[in-house]
Amino acid sequence: MPSITNNNPCVVLQKVGSITYEDRPVPELTDPHYVKIAIKQTGLCGSDLHYYETGCCGSFKVEKPMVLGHESSGEIVEVGSAVTSLKVGDRVACEPGIPSRYSQEYKSGNYNLCPHMAFAATPPYDGTLCRYYLLPEDFCVKLPDHVSLEEGALVEPLAVGVHANRLIDVKFGDSIIVFGAGPVGLLCAGVAKAFGCDKVLLVDIIDEKLAFAVEHGLASHTFNSRGQKFDDLMEKVKSIWKDSEHGLPTCGIDATGNQTCTNMCIRALAKKGRFVQVGMGPDNMDNFPIAAVMEKELTVKGSFRYSVNDYNYAVQLLKERKLNVKPLVTHRFKFSEAIEAYEFSKKGQSIKIMISGPE
Amino acid sequence: MPSITNNNPCVVLQKVGSITYEDRPVPELTDPHYVKIAIKQTGLCGSDLHYYETGCCGSFKVEKPMVLGHESSGEIVEVGSAVTSLKVGDRVACEPGIPSRYSQEYKSGNYNLCPHMAFAATPPYDGTLCRYYLLPEDFCVKLPDHVSLEEGALVEPLAVGVHANRLIDVKFGDSIIVFGAGPVGLLCAGVAKAFGCDKVLLVDIIDEKLAFAVEHGLASHTFNSRGQKFDDLMEKVKSIWKDSEHGLPTCGIDATGNQTCTNMCIRALAKKGRFVQVGMGPDNMDNFPIAAVMEKELTVKGSFRYSVNDYNYAVQLLKERKLNVKPLVTHRFKFSEAIEAYEFSKKGQSIKIMISGPE
Amino acid sequence: MPSITNNNPCVVLQKVGSITYEDRPVPELTDPHYVKIAIKQTGLCGSDLHYYETGCCGSFKVEKPMVLGHESSGEIVEVGSAVTSLKVGDRVACEPGIPSRYSQEYKSGNYNLCPHMAFAATPPYDGTLCRYYLLPEDFCVKLPDHVSLEEGALVEPLAVGVHANRLIDVKFGDSIIVFGAGPVGLLCAGVAKAFGCDKVLLVDIIDEKLAFAVEHGLASHTFNSRGQKFDDLMEKVKSIWKDSEHGLPTCGIDATGNQTCTNMCIRALAKKGRFVQVGMGPDNMDNFPIAAVMEKELTVKGSFRYSVNDYNYAVQLLKERKLNVKPLVTHRFKFSEAIEAYEFSKKGQSIKIMISGPE
Amino acid sequence: MPSITNNNPCVVLQKVGSITYEDRPVPELTDPHYVKIAIKQTGLCGSDLHYYETGCCGSFKVEKPMVLGHESSGEIVEVGSAVTSLKVGDRVACEPGIPSRYSQEYKSGNYNLCPHMAFAATPPYDGTLCRYYLLPEDFCVKLPDHVSLEEGALVEPLAVGVHANRLIDVKFGDSIIVFGAGPVGLLCAGVAKAFGCDKVLLVDIIDEKLAFAVEHGLASHTFNSRGQKFDDLMEKVKSIWKDSEHGLPTCGIDATGNQTCTNMCIRALAKKGRFVQVGMGPDNMDNFPIAAVMEKELTVKGSFRYSVNDYNYAVQLLKERKLNVKPLVTHRFKFSEAIEAYEFSKKGQSIKIMISGPE
Repeated sequence: MPSITNNNPCVVLQKVGSITYEDRPVPELTDPHYVKIAIKQTGLCGSDLHYYETGCCGSFKVEKPMVLGHESSGEIVEVGSAVTSLKVGDRVACEPGIPSRYSQEYKSGNYNLCPHMAFAATPPYDGTLCRYYLLPEDFCVKLPDHVSLEEGALVEPLAVGVHANRLIDVKFGDSIIVFGAGPVGLLCAGVAKAFGCDKVLLVDIIDEKLAFAVEHGLASHTFNSRGQKFDDLMEKVKSIWKDSEHGLPTCGIDATGNQTCTNMCIRALAKKGRFVQVGMGPDNMDNFPIAAVMEKELTVKGSFRYSVNDYNYAVQLLKERKLNVKPLVTHRFKFSEAIEAYEFSKKGQSIKIMISGPE
Repeated sequence: MPSITNNNPCVVLQKVGSITYEDRPVPELTDPHYVKIAIKQTGLCGSDLHYYETGCCGSFKVEKPMVLGHESSGEIVEVGSAVTSLKVGDRVACEPGIPSRYSQEYKSGNYNLCPHMAFAATPPYDGTLCRYYLLPEDFCVKLPDHVSLEEGALVEPLAVGVHANRLIDVKFGDSIIVFGAGPVGLLCAGVAKAFGCDKVLLVDIIDEKLAFAVEHGLASHTFNSRGQKFDDLMEKVKSIWKDSEHGLPTCGIDATGNQTCTNMCIRALAKKGRFVQVGMGPDNMDNFPIAAVMEKELTVKGSFRYSVNDYNYAVQLLKERKLNVKPLVTHRFKFSEAIEAYEFSKKGQSIKIMISGPE
Repeated sequence: MPSITNNNPCVVLQKVGSITYEDRPVPELTDPHYVKIAIKQTGLCGSDLHYYETGCCGSFKVEKPMVLGHESSGEIVEVGSAVTSLKVGDRVACEPGIPSRYSQEYKSGNYNLCPHMAFAATPPYDGTLCRYYLLPEDFCVKLPDHVSLEEGALVEPLAVGVHANRLIDVKFGDSIIVFGAGPVGLLCAGVAKAFGCDKVLLVDIIDEKLAFAVEHGLASHTFNSRGQKFDDLMEKVKSIWKDSEHGLPTCGIDATGNQTCTNMCIRALAKKGRFVQVGMGPDNMDNFPIAAVMEKELTVKGSFRYSVNDYNYAVQLLKERKLNVKPLVTHRFKFSEAIEAYEFSKKGQSIKIMISGPE
Repeated sequence: MPSITNNNPCVVLQKVGSITYEDRPVPELTDPHYVKIAIKQTGLCGSDLHYYETGCCGSFKVEKPMVLGHESSGEIVEVGSAVTSLKVGDRVACEPGIPSRYSQEYKSGNYNLCPHMAFAATPPYDGTLCRYYLLPEDFCVKLPDHVSLEEGALVEPLAVGVHANRLIDVKFGDSIIVFGAGPVGLLCAGVAKAFGCDKVLLVDIIDEKLAFAVEHGLASHTFNSRGQKFDDLMEKVKSIWKDSEHGLPTCGIDATGNQTCTNMCIRALAKKGRFVQVGMGPDNMDNFPIAAVMEKELTVKGSFRYSVNDYNYAVQLLKERKLNVKPLVTHRFKFSEAIEAYEFSKKGQSIKIMISGPE
């Protein structure tokens, strides 16, 4: 990070494969409902990497320089005149997508679907990898004293897991099968367990990830599906569920975006089971098990980011220590090493990379 | 129907392509909760034709002679000692699938999913194309005076439409797009309209069927999708929905089982929309629009037959004249002409064929 | 209305029993999301009368002069720069309560419960009985051509009925008993019918009101409860419901606020029935039938004004002619006769008094 | 227990105040879906005591000698020919109310409301305080090895708590206030905690009971309401909930049947809060806070016993050790001391009295 002289250094994606530091003006707090946050920790997310490597993510495309980062926590340094729940010095998790207060979606309690959403590090909106960031008061959730700023930055992917689990109303009496042991899959599984599932079967093709999940209490059972057929999976499922009320998982989450995973996950469910797709893959998916959906009268949903109260629920899970997210941070970089962090990220050796600062 | 001398003549599928009449014994009423019904009208269903032509339907396979028919109405001729709500002479719609009273599914209010279901004309269970049929009291729904026995036989496919609409909770404030203008699609559309949808867009590839739907009040709008692309459909949809709250249909039903229809139907929905698959196709479906499901947070369900109260709701729709099902019967045969009816059915020129009798 | 020289004449409650006209400045349109409306019709509501006669309504108390009126329709005369769905000349129903876009209640889809609500003619907020009124675009619902401005003013009480019916999810398959045949009770009954109830039993103590309801299709059955006991009511209920699935109403609404009515209404319900209290009475109610609530596992809710989409649903009911509200307007006054209208209102001889203008 | 010579000794309430032992015939297992259970532990319930002291409970009245007891566990000694999930030697919790498999309530998933319910120790049905008792297979829930027969007998009141909590859908993100620290109130609170409530405030007038709840993890906070006003309670509530999302409890349960408790409990709830009445009191309740129900749009329900899956959920809570019910058993008697147990029960010094045997 050579020669940052201004007060608001930013990590900027200039174009595919090119990240630089820029000295940008410190944003001014003009909206009375907003606060100014000094960013302290930022997780590196798969979408960030996508923009870095390809310039796009889903239907979004980077067309001008964009500040990266959207999984952040920080400290309040200034509050607008209408702010009542936060004060200077408060440590907060930052919800990075701001919808229009005037949209029908916001009004109906589904602001994640607002077409006017301004989402950090999603073109054309700048991200959070900078010194100062502005947010409305109600898109910051105060962290309890015993929750670290690193954990605060993990609230973003945790909220994805909270939202998915809430969409299919996972609770005591349910049990679940989750495909994918990346950060989101791990957190989906962990939230399901925290929400009351007695059985949480996590499926992936890498033993180390599965072992990690069990070691840190994010799953109760695991299955390595590499080279396995559906019948192999079901043998395992039936042995785990043999003495349960429904004999099969009542809930399923796919966090891979892979059609074979979605197919297996749905077919493994009990009658009247609920499934939610969290992992993004191609727009259209082959081999979708529609007969199973009909014969068992399953419910299939799709999850998109997070919405009302998901951030609050995520922080509450940490507050009550219902979930241990700390071990997910496997690698740490300083703000001045952000470029190295992105380069390292390409290797796929980490679960979650955390960037601290700027100082 | 040559020389039927016994009291319980039946139309029996002997093997693929071969239907004969058999004189079978009149069933005895032994269970106090049961009634004996003299069958009066029986609709010919696609599944009946499947068995006739191929010997199977879905995963079911005919392995021994089986009485055909499951869309019937009749007259009560005898009641068991515990029966309180029906009496001899009552005209009833006959629900043709009897679950186990001891299954977890029955207990939970989802008896359609009971694994011990004995369903008429689904191997190995005999159907209703006979003179006398036994049913539990609560699987017969009394027909109001102004509802004919033909309409009573149509309660079966109507209940399919009721169940699908109830699964996705169609009601006032909703609007719907339905693919498929066969009997089930027509009735799904008609039920949606009766349940309060202001806009019911029916899609098919045959103009005559679409015109039929509008003529008889089963749909408000139609679209012939032959050779049309998704964008063509959406142009139509947007023009119809342009002044509505959500701008797009809130609900969708596919009654074709065709993957292109399912794909289009789901993609046409408004955010948070609900879709239900009613038409059966292959076990796995390609080109399933999972990105649309995620980005709009849609709900996708599968519908299987009918369950608690669906028959009652269907009869109530007829009672209140909220739906005119009579025109669906385009061809009529006598019991003694049942073989001709099945042969005629192959031609695909009818909407619903009705077999009256036996006398 | 002597000597109104300014451009924004208002009907102002100065103190208990004293209404005068005031010439107030025309409000300026400064918020880009707002529109300016020329008020055309305003219904006179019970709460208006309460303020006139007693100075208070519920916990609200008039402490300074306040413009009266909150059931209004009008014509758009100016639109803010961000307005997209309305244009000058549009005729609209005016939703009179504006919540804070920043409240947790608004965010959760329950803006009617927002503690920062600014509600017309509820102290300290001025009402709509004036020439010009400002509203956010999304709190105006455009009236279809065939819906009159009088009907547009009736959207307010109609939305109360919509909200109550939606709270307990009244739909096809349900049936209802409604207590109270004032404007709100009549509209609750009418909405229940429009939402699909086959049986709508309206209960009041004045035969004329009950006859009015039946004549205009707002109820299917009526019962005059004057001097009647619960057993008398139940004899009637049972005779009406004798051939229905549940044998008793599945839903109930009290629009009187009288404890005897609430008691009877709740006790008349079928098992698992749903009741909603709409009529306001004392804060605490005696003789609440808690044993019936337990033994039948009923659901009891309270309804407060209206919320997301209720105004839209109300206008849609009128658009589709599912409900005829016109006959409710029994007496009409001009803006210049507003004081006479309030005086006349005291006599209780009207269903709904409508004040037109100012011109 | 003088001279029991037959094989099925029973504890029989002969009339008010008079309990004797009777030697009754061992019941024969004739229904293939039934099992025969050797009763091992039976909890003494308030309703049992009511019958003993007054001859009635609610609207039920003892009119002929009746075997007492309905909170039992036991060991399977014989199974019917259709039984598949249980075998001789299995230890089970006994669900004591058997509905009709043919009722509309059973079919709809609400068998607790079945009008043909045969409930143990509810006139005219005999109870479980005997050596052998017959039940359908699916009304017995197998106990895991680590769950004792005493705990198995406590499944009955635990299921009451499960049912009440499920009725208002208590889960992670909720918080609750429970009135009454008798066995049912304690278990309602404990279930709420196990279902995910972070804050469980238990209110009673006896400090020892409140201390017991906290000591055994059944509540997180307590309040002694003796001589306290509503404002005192709210001061406490607000201090506990000050940093929570809604600022007040989202859920409430009254397990006392006392109108002051119901009033306070409902008024303490957050907007859109849900309340369920579990404790039985008089048929009609004064001072019901209807204005609070309306202004906050609360939901009030009544709970009646337990229904589909509640027993399973209760056993699962014990299986997963989510709840420690053992300490509730404060006093133990042998079957031969049953009369003494009932006499002791009158003193009100116990939480739960358990009767073991007969041997």
